[in-house]
Amino acid sequence: MKGEIVAIGDELTSGRILNSTSQFAAHHLFAMGHEIVAMSTIGDSPELIGAAVRKALDRADFVIVTGGLGPTSDDLTSEAVSTALGRPPTFHPEILEKVQAFLERFGGGHGKTSPSKKNIELEKLAWLPAGAEVLKPEAHMAGYLLVHDDKPIFFLPGVPHEMRQLLVEEVIPRLTAWQEGDERQVRQRLYRIFGLPEAEVNRRLAHLEDDNSLVKFGYYPVYPEVHLNITVLGADVEETEALLTIFDRRIRQAIGPYIYGLGEEGLEEIVGRLLRERGASLAVAESCTGGLMGHLLTEVAGSSDYFLGGITAYSNTVKERLLGVDSTILEEQGAVSAETARAMAQGARRSIGSDYAVAITGIAGPSGGTPDKPLGTVCFALATPDGVQDFRYQFSGSRHKVQIMAAHMGLDILRRAL
Amino acid sequence: MKGEIVAIGDELTSGRILNSTSQFAAHHLFAMGHEIVAMSTIGDSPELIGAAVRKALDRADFVIVTGGLGPTSDDLTSEAVSTALGRPPTFHPEILEKVQAFLERFGGGHGKTSPSKKNIELEKLAWLPAGAEVLKPEAHMAGYLLVHDDKPIFFLPGVPHEMRQLLVEEVIPRLTAWQEGDERQVRQRLYRIFGLPEAEVNRRLAHLEDDNSLVKFGYYPVYPEVHLNITVLGADVEETEALLTIFDRRIRQAIGPYIYGLGEEGLEEIVGRLLRERGASLAVAESCTGGLMGHLLTEVAGSSDYFLGGITAYSNTVKERLLGVDSTILEEQGAVSAETARAMAQGARRSIGSDYAVAITGIAGPSGGTPDKPLGTVCFALATPDGVQDFRYQFSGSRHKVQIMAAHMGLDILRRAL
Repeated sequence: MKGEIVAIGDELTSGRILNSTSQFAAHHLFAMGHEIVAMSTIGDSPELIGAAVRKALDRADFVIVTGGLGPTSDDLTSEAVSTALGRPPTFHPEILEKVQAFLERFGGGHGKTSPSKKNIELEKLAWLPAGAEVLKPEAHMAGYLLVHDDKPIFFLPGVPHEMRQLLVEEVIPRLTAWQEGDERQVRQRLYRIFGLPEAEVNRRLAHLEDDNSLVKFGYYPVYPEVHLNITVLGADVEETEALLTIFDRRIRQAIGPYIYGLGEEGLEEIVGRLLRERGASLAVAESCTGGLMGHLLTEVAGSSDYFLGGITAYSNTVKERLLGVDSTILEEQGAVSAETARAMAQGARRSIGSDYAVAITGIAGPSGGTPDKPLGTVCFALATPDGVQDFRYQFSGSRHKVQIMAAHMGLDILRRAL
Repeated sequence: MKGEIVAIGDELTSGRILNSTSQFAAHHLFAMGHEIVAMSTIGDSPELIGAAVRKALDRADFVIVTGGLGPTSDDLTSEAVSTALGRPPTFHPEILEKVQAFLERFGGGHGKTSPSKKNIELEKLAWLPAGAEVLKPEAHMAGYLLVHDDKPIFFLPGVPHEMRQLLVEEVIPRLTAWQEGDERQVRQRLYRIFGLPEAEVNRRLAHLEDDNSLVKFGYYPVYPEVHLNITVLGADVEETEALLTIFDRRIRQAIGPYIYGLGEEGLEEIVGRLLRERGASLAVAESCTGGLMGHLLTEVAGSSDYFLGGITAYSNTVKERLLGVDSTILEEQGAVSAETARAMAQGARRSIGSDYAVAITGIAGPSGGTPDKPLGTVCFALATPDGVQDFRYQFSGSRHKVQIMAAHMGLDILRRAL
């Protein structure tokens, strides 16, 4: 189908924020075989919003509108659409209840807000154009569907992660169901890849991409990973499954060791699952990542079952005091060395009392590089009940990117060992 | 003046390429006091291009069109504009000569293209809508100005670095020269706010927002913070400065303690600067955040000057072993308690040997809450050379959000103390 995307917000038209959500939507819709005829970005003005939605409805089969659904005075989308499409605002008490319950737990006003004033703001969220169907009634995010002139219009929040979630979980399946006459069976599979840059993934899979439109490849760099989404369109269930099996095998032949998982499960979840299956416990000793690997591990609910804790030894004194790294190693080999990493991992395993320990020490930059150990040099060690192994990698990019890459590499070293 | 930006290219509407050039243009034009009413992105279709340019001319004082000026078959901008605006294509021999001379020096064809074929393609570059003025005749890039209905339309290449150069060197100076009568001065200021939800910031500032268009308020939630951007439009420099001073004072009266900074500097940078000014060192003891506060601190280059390290005590054993938390405190008060937080902060300060230490222990969820200590309860302690203070907050949202909010609150507690 032909679609159009309308993004709303002064923060976009003033150039303060880069509009990456429209691209995300275009990319996913294109991968599903839809054609995006136009994307427009407009400021917080009811006239412009109304005109843009009407115009989009004229020339497209479906429309996606993002932004302007919040409770503040510059959130004008629902109001503008009510006027432009002649659909009077309709009150949805269940939305107000949901939001109030949420804010009560959150404690938005701390008793200093007059209730009447507060309600006026929040009530906005509950007034939707007549005929609106809330997309995810159970979730704490805005988003609804309106069918006008027999065409679906999806209204999504401008907050990137909410918009992405609704697009993938609600919009794309509903569009697929909407598409009548097309009896093809659609299956998608998301490969999560770590350790290969996007261009290299692309190069290794180029021979699999064809223009017969049976299998579409979509590449999404989600730093530090690359996600590959394939969409298979077979004539029926059997054909679709057969194609999926064929292409899965070919993809694994090309980049198998770098695929760490499928679907939604992240690296930290897979590592956690593997540790839990083995009944093993983990500690970390971090220097250049400052605690990021530990934090990634604890983003998983229930991680206290296997993650005991960590020591962030940013200064050499802490490396000696808390991890027992010998001062002669630090002097002779340096803080960024295989020997220091090994001593850190063994020290963390011993002092925290875990089965496994991972150590990370490196030069994140922007200064501190030497000819021997340029910026981005990161040494790792993995201590297990059977001994210690060390690894050295050279990363590139900003300080921030080196830290993120190093913390994920720590997880991947553990994943491969487990 | 009011402007509109039209970006052209299938690579944009398919989501293959992120449109960063429109944002670049919007940002620069906004900073010069222009208002961008809309940005649109359309595919390589003559009808869509013509309609978008006509529409933009209707509602804006100037238009910027990027992309579709090259020599290949999908470059259709000039052709489409000739038709839509009734300006027959006009041949510019000097453009063809320039391009041919350029290609002779750099060998564009590599011998694989037949000369006739190549000429037909190249000639395209020399056919512009009647009345076009080439923007930079001496440069090897496309780009021209067309004045239609007394409004300037700038056609720029889609190649980002060429587009950026022409925008800064040609478009902005020409627009400034064009702008007669409007002598207004623009100033912007960005306030960074932590500890108040967006709706509450909005409510407290509602009385300052007026519709006289002198001062514009923009709210941007950047979790866990809220950014407020004000734009002041005065008749001259003095008036603009005076308005900025007045509104700055009013904003600070309303939400002063929650404003932690202005402009680009983040919370972790401000905390680092304050520690550096005092020549003080810092350690952290984290439980529910798993190392995130330490990581935020080390995102700042040079943080090793004041951040010594941290202990992530995810299990109670580690709290006892490495932080010296008394087991009776853990048993009687629980791991999430003011007493445990105090003991953790003191333990980190002692064992790492820092001047300050911050401790965080809480219930990030999704399970583990009790009536006394519901999900999202987080206890903090700050140990200084003068003693220990403790704090308790109640956060809401997902595990991920509680962790992010808690790590930032740890930084903010330290900022307020410093």
